[in-house]
Amino acid sequence: MNWALIGYGGMGHWHVNKLKTLPEIDIKGVYDIDPAKREAARADGLHAWDTLEALLADPEVELVTIATPNDFHLPIAVEAMAAGKHVISEKPVTTSSLELQQMIDASRKYNRIFTVHQNRRWDEDFRVIKKIYDENVLGPVFNIESRVQGSRGVPGDWRNRKLQGGGMILDWGVHLLDQILQLVDEPVVSVYCTVSHVTNDEVDDGFRTIITFGSGLTAHVEVGTSNFASLPRWYMTGENGTAVINNWAIEGEIVKVFDWEKRDAVPVVTAAGLTKTMAPRTPETIRTEPLPRIDCDVRDFYRNIIKAIHGEEKQIVTHEQMMRVMRLMEALFRSAEANEVVHTRI
Amino acid sequence: MNWALIGYGGMGHWHVNKLKTLPEIDIKGVYDIDPAKREAARADGLHAWDTLEALLADPEVELVTIATPNDFHLPIAVEAMAAGKHVISEKPVTTSSLELQQMIDASRKYNRIFTVHQNRRWDEDFRVIKKIYDENVLGPVFNIESRVQGSRGVPGDWRNRKLQGGGMILDWGVHLLDQILQLVDEPVVSVYCTVSHVTNDEVDDGFRTIITFGSGLTAHVEVGTSNFASLPRWYMTGENGTAVINNWAIEGEIVKVFDWEKRDAVPVVTAAGLTKTMAPRTPETIRTEPLPRIDCDVRDFYRNIIKAIHGEEKQIVTHEQMMRVMRLMEALFRSAEANEVVHTRI
Repeated sequence: MNWALIGYGGMGHWHVNKLKTLPEIDIKGVYDIDPAKREAARADGLHAWDTLEALLADPEVELVTIATPNDFHLPIAVEAMAAGKHVISEKPVTTSSLELQQMIDASRKYNRIFTVHQNRRWDEDFRVIKKIYDENVLGPVFNIESRVQGSRGVPGDWRNRKLQGGGMILDWGVHLLDQILQLVDEPVVSVYCTVSHVTNDEVDDGFRTIITFGSGLTAHVEVGTSNFASLPRWYMTGENGTAVINNWAIEGEIVKVFDWEKRDAVPVVTAAGLTKTMAPRTPETIRTEPLPRIDCDVRDFYRNIIKAIHGEEKQIVTHEQMMRVMRLMEALFRSAEANEVVHTRI
Repeated sequence: MNWALIGYGGMGHWHVNKLKTLPEIDIKGVYDIDPAKREAARADGLHAWDTLEALLADPEVELVTIATPNDFHLPIAVEAMAAGKHVISEKPVTTSSLELQQMIDASRKYNRIFTVHQNRRWDEDFRVIKKIYDENVLGPVFNIESRVQGSRGVPGDWRNRKLQGGGMILDWGVHLLDQILQLVDEPVVSVYCTVSHVTNDEVDDGFRTIITFGSGLTAHVEVGTSNFASLPRWYMTGENGTAVINNWAIEGEIVKVFDWEKRDAVPVVTAAGLTKTMAPRTPETIRTEPLPRIDCDVRDFYRNIIKAIHGEEKQIVTHEQMMRVMRLMEALFRSAEANEVVHTRI
């Protein structure tokens, strides 16, 4: 598959480096609006077109990845599909469901594959929590918490400008929300969201949302950029156990109860009081297990797209999924703006 | 001060044992509705009245503590004040602001001291987080999280019955909400609350609330009873640092930045992606400090009430504070019932 990159920034470099190791991909070259970045690409041994038109006019190029600032995804994607290219957009695919619909319409009109780089479906932490959820390890799950917390504010580039689709809901949020929708196979019935503006007035530099699904299961999804100590990456509670994944190194544990009926609580003194409810469990009623480990290869995203282009597989990240995440993000924005619960069916 | 106890259950024992060590208190005896508990009190060397009327008719008794199930606090408190006794009620003082107003009215009518045992204002974890907040150690604080998580469900007594004021909002919630209102000296402008019913249909066996204060500062307050692994007791984020208190043993840390301007973020590979936003800080821009320790003596609650009765001090836990916590709990119930944000001014 002959591939080209549009936008040679941080993630652009990441795509090139990943695809160098994928035999199914032939890297044809790079375009960037910035001449210095085109020069950098040439210095890195890559072909660099001088204009986007030249790239899109190259009949050899079959598949492009768009890794520009967010506000350029829509026009470039539509233009590329019109030119006969299959398109992968970096995330967020765009900043509204109306715009996303234009991209999906173009995909149908020009009969081209179009998807978004939801690479974090291949994050091991997500795969591990999904395995625990899917295999019902904790019994019926009633709450899932997913957090990513850094301490550097919003990067000082287009990511802190509203018109360019900045802010953390559209940045890390789009990954965490996509993961949650992949995890819980239920409709979202309500959303409450608060945002922070610690380091940035124009866009959210963090958010916290409580999503309620049809069964009553809740998900707490949170991104922070002014957190100098972090809470665990994942925290999931089922009726018979709790799973904690502390970090990307998959440190953590599963704690399961195997004798719920044993009501052996002895009140304990805690600080200035007594508690029976919060008495620690005695060791004979619980069991701690290590987290499973899972081999993940994010290049499977590209392998799937190549097969989808060849008609051998369906694309993993579908238009319906992309639209669902977009509608969920729009609900978060509405909720935070009004400080109200958004009742919905997503 | 001649003191008597009404209700010789778990907390009743706790009061007796604490007050045995307080020279200012003379323990006159105990009343319990259950003859077996009266016998137990006698076996413990305490005087036990056979009726509540007999206790209240005893002219020696000046101060009573009510440690009965929640639905008995109101009638007993009013009756005791009418009989000329000063009254301490166990928490929650009662289950609605209308009922609380009757108790406050009785306190004024009979000119008796009336308060609630908010003993957890003397918890060291709370005092430590309050010191960090009050001394502006983290810079302007924008979020405070307070959690208590156990794994034993709701105790199998009146605490799981709605008509007796069961459930976790009224149990641990009343402490954590009182602490938050003591910590943040601002009006509450909105509340969102979700409750869990993992082990109990009749009452909440856990809740999670986001409280927004006038300045925009948010507090996340949570109680869980089906959590086999726990998140930290306190997690507080300021513009220049984060404080974590893991548990009642005051394990945890303060992490402060002292070079915010140094934008030295180098993108790091995390799982199946790259992130600049979540890149860990380099050690030269942050400093980790131990948590301060504070000596707390919950008997100061009783010492204050004795002085308040003697007119030497104002009571620490005031009627206004009790009413504020009650109104906040009512807002939580309304929010959870409707799955809506409650806009308020508390």
